[in-house]
Amino acid sequence: MHDALVSPEVLVHAGPQARLVDVGKRGGRERNAEQERITAEMIEHARAGLDVVRLKGGDPFVFGRGGEEVAELVSAGIEVVVVPGVSSAIAGPAAAGIPLTLRDLAASVGIVSGHSAGSRADLRAITRLATLDGIARSMLSVLPADRPAAVIYAATTPEQRVVRAPLDLIATAAAAEDLPGPALLVVGEVVEALPKRRLARLLSEVLAG
Amino acid sequence: MHDALVSPEVLVHAGPQARLVDVGKRGGRERNAEQERITAEMIEHARAGLDVVRLKGGDPFVFGRGGEEVAELVSAGIEVVVVPGVSSAIAGPAAAGIPLTLRDLAASVGIVSGHSAGSRADLRAITRLATLDGIARSMLSVLPADRPAAVIYAATTPEQRVVRAPLDLIATAAAAEDLPGPALLVVGEVVEALPKRRLARLLSEVLAG
Repeated sequence: MHDALVSPEVLVHAGPQARLVDVGKRGGRERNAEQERITAEMIEHARAGLDVVRLKGGDPFVFGRGGEEVAELVSAGIEVVVVPGVSSAIAGPAAAGIPLTLRDLAASVGIVSGHSAGSRADLRAITRLATLDGIARSMLSVLPADRPAAVIYAATTPEQRVVRAPLDLIATAAAAEDLPGPALLVVGEVVEALPKRRLARLLSEVLAG
Repeated sequence: MHDALVSPEVLVHAGPQARLVDVGKRGGRERNAEQERITAEMIEHARAGLDVVRLKGGDPFVFGRGGEEVAELVSAGIEVVVVPGVSSAIAGPAAAGIPLTLRDLAASVGIVSGHSAGSRADLRAITRLATLDGIARSMLSVLPADRPAAVIYAATTPEQRVVRAPLDLIATAAAAEDLPGPALLVVGEVVEALPKRRLARLLSEVLAG
């Protein structure tokens, strides 16, 4: 049972006896109701004696609803093993050549969802561009206007795009690039710390094969 | 060129033509000088036409000195590709059954090194038990004494140990368990959110084969 962030290149590694269920196309406005159905389906299959793999893009415990699913499964008496993953909150900046920590420059990392309420805490929605302007404005109340910022779209895929600008201009710069969907927003001096364009291009090329 | 956090189970995947260099035993008090020697060695090999893999445990850009190394390499004209990893800051809590985010309970994550200065920002040193008491005391100035806390030692390995206690008692509880080295400290309501002992045991069993 995999979500929309799991690429075909990963799914081919499933054994021939595995039944693949794409639950990523479900959701949208009825996401919470759909989440309940996904969990119920996992419990049903597990009780029928099947091994259920709930495969998520990123890390299941960082804005992935993994905690909610595990709580339901354990309450239902299902044995659960959690396998940590590569969170896009960390992989996205890396793919753009942005180190999250750097000696003498950044000794801590904060990860927040673009949605203030926890009820839609989904990393895919960490920064919908429709709200990027609002997020940047909020940050400007506590951070200087010239703090380097970057918006990373489709991180680590061949479609990866990175837009860089000072915090007060990042929303305008991202809008000008017309990025099609959810993205990561990274703010901090680390954004300008490395010669990053070269890094970003190279990683994309490698991933594109 | 791999560090001490890379296990033998990973190194066996290196091809027969690869020359393995363990740079993890270097360091200690002369860590900064040794870091310079490691970077110089990478540059030397790369200039000799070799492909150099700098293999780190965790994620190279989260308290891994990866940013520093990349900056030096790019300055030297070496092409660099950064491959994101599974940060122990995320994997450790997952292995202990602690979700970093959970709907209605935690909508953001903060990651800090146990060393206040960036000069020794190393995830392996995020909480030396000698300073756990000091860290917990600092946190008590801004967090309630009964905030759930956990110390995770040797996360995801068969030696994994997890100690749980309220924040004001966590240092004493960890000291009583006599954990031998660096560990992760996790603080937040999420520590008590899941039926975690069962999860932790199961993951350790899976990893132990």
